[in-house]
Amino acid sequence: MTSFREKAKSELMTIFTAAVAAVDPERIVKQWVQVNDELAQIGNCSFSLNKVGKLWVVGAGKAAARMAKALEEILAKYLAGGIVITKYGHGLPLEKITVREAGHPVPDEAGVEATKEILRLVQSVGERDAIFVLISGGGSALLIAPSTGLTLRDKQEITTLLLNNGVPIEQINVVRKHLSQVKGGQLARHAYPAQVFSLILSDVIGDPVDIIASGPTVPDPSTFKDAVAVLHRYHLWDRLPPRAVRFLTAALEGKQSDTPKPGDEVFSKVKNFIIGNNYQALQGAYQQAKTLGYRTLILSSSIQGEAREVARVLAAIAREVVRSGNPLSPPACIIAGGETTVTIRGEGLGGRNQELALAIALDLQGLDNVAVLSAGSDGTDGPTDAAGAFAFGDTVARGQNKGLDAQAYLQNNDSYHYFKAIGDLFQSGPTGTNVMDLQIILVQQPEN
Amino acid sequence: MTSFREKAKSELMTIFTAAVAAVDPERIVKQWVQVNDELAQIGNCSFSLNKVGKLWVVGAGKAAARMAKALEEILAKYLAGGIVITKYGHGLPLEKITVREAGHPVPDEAGVEATKEILRLVQSVGERDAIFVLISGGGSALLIAPSTGLTLRDKQEITTLLLNNGVPIEQINVVRKHLSQVKGGQLARHAYPAQVFSLILSDVIGDPVDIIASGPTVPDPSTFKDAVAVLHRYHLWDRLPPRAVRFLTAALEGKQSDTPKPGDEVFSKVKNFIIGNNYQALQGAYQQAKTLGYRTLILSSSIQGEAREVARVLAAIAREVVRSGNPLSPPACIIAGGETTVTIRGEGLGGRNQELALAIALDLQGLDNVAVLSAGSDGTDGPTDAAGAFAFGDTVARGQNKGLDAQAYLQNNDSYHYFKAIGDLFQSGPTGTNVMDLQIILVQQPEN
Repeated sequence: MTSFREKAKSELMTIFTAAVAAVDPERIVKQWVQVNDELAQIGNCSFSLNKVGKLWVVGAGKAAARMAKALEEILAKYLAGGIVITKYGHGLPLEKITVREAGHPVPDEAGVEATKEILRLVQSVGERDAIFVLISGGGSALLIAPSTGLTLRDKQEITTLLLNNGVPIEQINVVRKHLSQVKGGQLARHAYPAQVFSLILSDVIGDPVDIIASGPTVPDPSTFKDAVAVLHRYHLWDRLPPRAVRFLTAALEGKQSDTPKPGDEVFSKVKNFIIGNNYQALQGAYQQAKTLGYRTLILSSSIQGEAREVARVLAAIAREVVRSGNPLSPPACIIAGGETTVTIRGEGLGGRNQELALAIALDLQGLDNVAVLSAGSDGTDGPTDAAGAFAFGDTVARGQNKGLDAQAYLQNNDSYHYFKAIGDLFQSGPTGTNVMDLQIILVQQPEN
Repeated sequence: MTSFREKAKSELMTIFTAAVAAVDPERIVKQWVQVNDELAQIGNCSFSLNKVGKLWVVGAGKAAARMAKALEEILAKYLAGGIVITKYGHGLPLEKITVREAGHPVPDEAGVEATKEILRLVQSVGERDAIFVLISGGGSALLIAPSTGLTLRDKQEITTLLLNNGVPIEQINVVRKHLSQVKGGQLARHAYPAQVFSLILSDVIGDPVDIIASGPTVPDPSTFKDAVAVLHRYHLWDRLPPRAVRFLTAALEGKQSDTPKPGDEVFSKVKNFIIGNNYQALQGAYQQAKTLGYRTLILSSSIQGEAREVARVLAAIAREVVRSGNPLSPPACIIAGGETTVTIRGEGLGGRNQELALAIALDLQGLDNVAVLSAGSDGTDGPTDAAGAFAFGDTVARGQNKGLDAQAYLQNNDSYHYFKAIGDLFQSGPTGTNVMDLQIILVQQPEN
């Protein structure tokens, strides 16, 4: 069993690495943007570099610096300059593009200042210029510009209020876009009439461009009236900071311009491209698993739901592979991705991937030939130093040998300490990209 | 959309019908037991009908009468007689086998009396005789023989106590087997030294023969000591009916014989056969879906977990079919089975299949080409007159048109009334078999 575990871990890591490589920010930017013979090609769009004005780069997200680095190389002499914002510790020294670091997941004043720089830049570019906007996970917190008269603190207070009062995320976003100068298509308005190419690395299920980083270059159908209606619906209007009430009251009286709507002319100059997503990572995993000799199946790139319940379904599929060779016969690799949630009931340490791995281990007990890795594609999982964890048919038994009760650890949401104790944490370090999570299930033939 | 829905419903019903037909009790008994030229064949066992003594049939479960009917036909003149117990309304007039009806899911005195008849019969058969034991879902409540000195009421009181105090089902079973004269291999002991052939239609995930109908012909590794330990662990010993305390105290002193253990000689004369299970039903569905022209995948026959969370994973897979053609490209049929659970928080009416269908509808909103049926293979779902329900991409929208909020109905566990209002209940009537639940997902090509 030890040798099976070690070999399976090694293969799971190889597959994970291939998945992450398939959405490497530098690589995918270079796939999407090419310059040949004075012609720039972005996806299926192209323009002559002799006819365009200057080229600029702005952006925000955990992968912003690496995406910017690639663009600096591709655009080379054609690049005029730019500013991107990334999370603390994720910066890179670039030549023409300024990289600012700021707070994430909690936004800070550094983010506000850097966003001001971006807004000044895009407002100053000429009509014939083109701006590349680089969007990746975390962009919503990093690209932050409270509406005139509001402070960062006001916005945070309102977000906390919305989160704590059961407001669904779609409705929270309606409010947030209306307390911002940059979200909900407003960056595109500031950039108008320059040409905008948005390159988006998606960290949201289904790749909804209006949700990823709050859609700075995407039309927003919602209105100030909708935002105020949400606040009334949840009885939060009277609990808003006074500045927010003044701002929204003025906005309702038409004293503020609303976010740009679908059909607004600013979007005639905008192209949004999803250049990387969870599905691409799954495809990378798929190719690698095939190379390793596995029959391979991509189950879904939009897995969601409570982590421990999702685990039960994945375990049921693994059991069926063992039992009847469905949906694939061994050696089989089943690949899934998306983003689960964890309803925290305990006081332990973990992340949604480690929780999923612990739950699946409980359902895989006694299966000798199954190995699972659940991990965040960015190399992190919850507030831990792990990206995820490995699960095997003997994960529960090896815990018992050390006096650990896997079920009790799961109840306490303490998956991190369980996996740490048995040596099955997956610690990849930061991967430089972020397309949510991956689950990789290997089922070997019985004789292995 | 209407014509798509009608066609999809019709195909889903055809596939469901094929699934149920594949585990039809009469059909599978006839597949497993054959008589040719004085030779009886049961699976891979055979014996000469000239050398054996008399042949008897006993059994219990919702499908018991139909299984017995098939055996009457197969064994014909070789059959001496027998007694089977089935649920009220599930009886059939047979010639040589007495069919008793009794209470299910709550056992009653009719079950106790009929079980006494069965015990008297099996104790009276000769060493050279053979007994066919027919086991199907519901057998645990129908084949009921409280230990000497206990009443049915005592047993029910204890079961309620165990269920209400968070005792896991495995430990509940340990206690129940030790308050019974028939569960946990004890029917086999009563039948010894006759030859026993147990034909089991499984209604439990993974087909654990010791769990299905509480394993009347299967060794029980657990002891009276284990049963008493469970009662102490959950602080229930002092809350037991006095007769149970007296019985168990005497048992601990060795005054009662324990359930027969693995290796016990009584099992040298017992063969247990799983003749039907959820996987077989899925295979029936698979063949029918192929015939209808679908690319088809069996996902798992052991799906478990909270119904609404399982729904999210199944919806994610359906979405991937639409989005990328994984794990199959349309026209695709994905088949799953097992038994989900519902944590009741509301006050509505429904069953786990209807709840799953309502939850999946919420995640399928806007998909034009997807149709789902979740249904109990026995034709019932919860305390309703439906077997399950159909879900489509417009299930939520059609409810809205009638002023119904699907999310609110789900929160209130009121899936039955939602589906009744929009006309998407699946009412098959009793199917005569029971191998848990089925989920069938159809994804058509966009042009359909």
